[in-house]
Amino acid sequence: MSSSRPRAGILVTGTEVLTGIISDRNGPWLSQQLAALGVDVVVIEVVGDRPGELLHALERMAADELALVVTSGGLGPTADDLTAEVVGRFAGREMVLDVQLEQRIAEILKPLMARWHGVDPEAVRASNRKQAVIPQGATVLEPVGTAPGLVVEPAAADGTGERARSGRADTAAAGAGDAAGPTVVVLPGPPRELQEMWPAAVETDAFRRAIAGAPEYRQRIVRLFGIPESEIAATLRAAPQAGVALDGLEITTCLRRGEIEIATRFDPAIAERYEALIEFIGQRHAGNLFSRDGSTIDQQVAELLRGMMIAVAESCTGGLMAARLTELPGSSAYFAGGIVAYSNEAKTALVGVEPVLIERHGAVSGEVAAALASGARERFSASVGVGITGIAGPGGGSEEKPVGLVCFSVAGPGQGYLTRSAKLPGDRADVRDRSTTVALHLVARALRGERD
Amino acid sequence: MSSSRPRAGILVTGTEVLTGIISDRNGPWLSQQLAALGVDVVVIEVVGDRPGELLHALERMAADELALVVTSGGLGPTADDLTAEVVGRFAGREMVLDVQLEQRIAEILKPLMARWHGVDPEAVRASNRKQAVIPQGATVLEPVGTAPGLVVEPAAADGTGERARSGRADTAAAGAGDAAGPTVVVLPGPPRELQEMWPAAVETDAFRRAIAGAPEYRQRIVRLFGIPESEIAATLRAAPQAGVALDGLEITTCLRRGEIEIATRFDPAIAERYEALIEFIGQRHAGNLFSRDGSTIDQQVAELLRGMMIAVAESCTGGLMAARLTELPGSSAYFAGGIVAYSNEAKTALVGVEPVLIERHGAVSGEVAAALASGARERFSASVGVGITGIAGPGGGSEEKPVGLVCFSVAGPGQGYLTRSAKLPGDRADVRDRSTTVALHLVARALRGERD
Repeated sequence: MSSSRPRAGILVTGTEVLTGIISDRNGPWLSQQLAALGVDVVVIEVVGDRPGELLHALERMAADELALVVTSGGLGPTADDLTAEVVGRFAGREMVLDVQLEQRIAEILKPLMARWHGVDPEAVRASNRKQAVIPQGATVLEPVGTAPGLVVEPAAADGTGERARSGRADTAAAGAGDAAGPTVVVLPGPPRELQEMWPAAVETDAFRRAIAGAPEYRQRIVRLFGIPESEIAATLRAAPQAGVALDGLEITTCLRRGEIEIATRFDPAIAERYEALIEFIGQRHAGNLFSRDGSTIDQQVAELLRGMMIAVAESCTGGLMAARLTELPGSSAYFAGGIVAYSNEAKTALVGVEPVLIERHGAVSGEVAAALASGARERFSASVGVGITGIAGPGGGSEEKPVGLVCFSVAGPGQGYLTRSAKLPGDRADVRDRSTTVALHLVARALRGERD
Repeated sequence: MSSSRPRAGILVTGTEVLTGIISDRNGPWLSQQLAALGVDVVVIEVVGDRPGELLHALERMAADELALVVTSGGLGPTADDLTAEVVGRFAGREMVLDVQLEQRIAEILKPLMARWHGVDPEAVRASNRKQAVIPQGATVLEPVGTAPGLVVEPAAADGTGERARSGRADTAAAGAGDAAGPTVVVLPGPPRELQEMWPAAVETDAFRRAIAGAPEYRQRIVRLFGIPESEIAATLRAAPQAGVALDGLEITTCLRRGEIEIATRFDPAIAERYEALIEFIGQRHAGNLFSRDGSTIDQQVAELLRGMMIAVAESCTGGLMAARLTELPGSSAYFAGGIVAYSNEAKTALVGVEPVLIERHGAVSGEVAAALASGARERFSASVGVGITGIAGPGGGSEEKPVGLVCFSVAGPGQGYLTRSAKLPGDRADVRDRSTTVALHLVARALRGERD
């Protein structure tokens, strides 16, 4: 299936990404966008700001005969931002100052300069002028921040710049033979700018030419909770034997925040085959397959809460449960509030947990989790209360109550509780994060009527 | 400088990473570890699970004459986990079952199987046996999860497996000429497993041989807050003119969570040159350079709080401020607790904000932020209280109070307040996250004695 699809590479530039100072958010995002357009992304590559490395990476991608390369980063005002220039050289196009673009960037900078005190305007203007120097004949994507994006076809593709092309050193794109080389989409590094600019890039004629022939293509995601990944592997192995054909389905399973996500990509013509697979998974893992439409547990809880309010009293998660419940826009419609009761005193004074409960069962216990849940519900006059208490580590564990032990309780809606505890794997950050996933699943079950 | 250092590539495998379903945490982490060892990381590459792509990527890295390749992922129990086998083929080594390793993995699986209900033990054993099949002569790294890691030298390097090597298709490593090709370190995909296994990999003889000749190497980080990146660019341009030489300093600047991070790598022999640069930056940006030793604002606040307790009442950040204050182990020594007061009712009932304040100034106002700060401080009997209220968006903004407007206040320690507001850029997630950075800086200033 993939052989007929246009192939693309993503080239993330920036020494700060290559050296691990920041992690790349653009590669994954671009990959999903390209897949949705029917493009086969074969590689995501991160290289530093040294121009030689960037050019070398472009040449490697040309040698692999990719139709499209999308770059992110290196469009900023500092001297190490060289992507436009290197891409121009790669495509065999001269660099020219786009005077009108320079003026538009100057307009953008005016209000920004007013925000900062003591900034030298000339320094800003000088360091930003270079953002208006672009490869001749490139399609400009209007700046979202201050940097314009570019769509740059190889010089041969539109008949311009052949002189520049023939004039360049002959090392580039050697592997591409007679092919003109990939079209390069040059995007800024900040994820928000890149994402906002993307639709304009997709709409350009140059982009459309590069991905001509991309088939319609579908990606579907289902999610499971509460089983190990090896069980899914066994199910996928068992499917063909049970008469469920998997040919043409590109299936990926991965663990994410304690859940298993199964992503499948396929030609719409074989949608029935996909449906049969999901039916098969649903039969084998009825209690675990919680999302057939790709919806997250966060979205499901928001939906289930319709018309009700939820409140949280949490300890080891330190505010992450409240933060997760307020992640989606519009969460004020169902989120009443939260209390982070880290100390025993706070559990008693702020949430009304009886000290005797803590003495008798310990702060990390189902009893205290339930008291936190009902206290949260009461204090915020909510329909549903959530209590979380546990040992995130690295210290504080004991033989009886090891690091990773977390107790969860949901009070309401209406009468009754749903209380569970789990020993979660991983380090402090993992335990805190996974706790919010476990709690959300418990909330969903309570909202569907389950009680202890 | 970099030409004398051994060069390495990082190869992240996994269709779930390539397709953007999950983002890679291993590339950045490995890059930092390798840099600390004096190794020059020239590329991080993400490829899918198709064995041909993985082999092709290894061959590209061999053609670039890298001394070392570190892979992550593809060691799991599912059929798409093929890294060990492909690396074996690449290195010219036959695959053999390590019977003792198989037994050790079986021991690891026993307690895991007890944790899950209704799992077919035979399925687990079968899908994990392949994890004990390794390239002949490879150094085994003991499993942290269930998958062993490997250090695989090219077959020529230790004299074993030459037969296998000469027998393979001749396409591999063609570009490396007579060179034996890179040593490949094969690590599991889950970040926790990879990180725990890394020290064992570094200690193997094979790894040491691969990076022989790596120079001692230093990386230092300083952090600034409250100025745009273009100002730093101007300062770096101005440095040589002011007699501050930058030769031999590899300087990277990046924006992270609203702060500017300047990372510099250099040979210890020119440490004085680095110190002169930081002195120069400190002179030009005295009020902004808050960290000369790389410490984060989180660590600084934790240090400044020594012996005091802090409490939070937050609205738009929805628990993220409390979560950030409890991120570091041992935070219970200084974090008293937090209230997420999303609704006006909660601000009044839980934190004691006077309704008249909200009516008069609006929920998003310096006055309400100060009332939240003092309410939090009082409720939790803390020395310091933090109040945050703002409009995270996407809805809820007005001309007077646009999306991104956030008001912060710190009450105490002792008398008085420090209250500020800021219009923060970005989407809902950006505004929420950056708010915690701004608040932490305000807390640090208050702890150093600043008051309105």
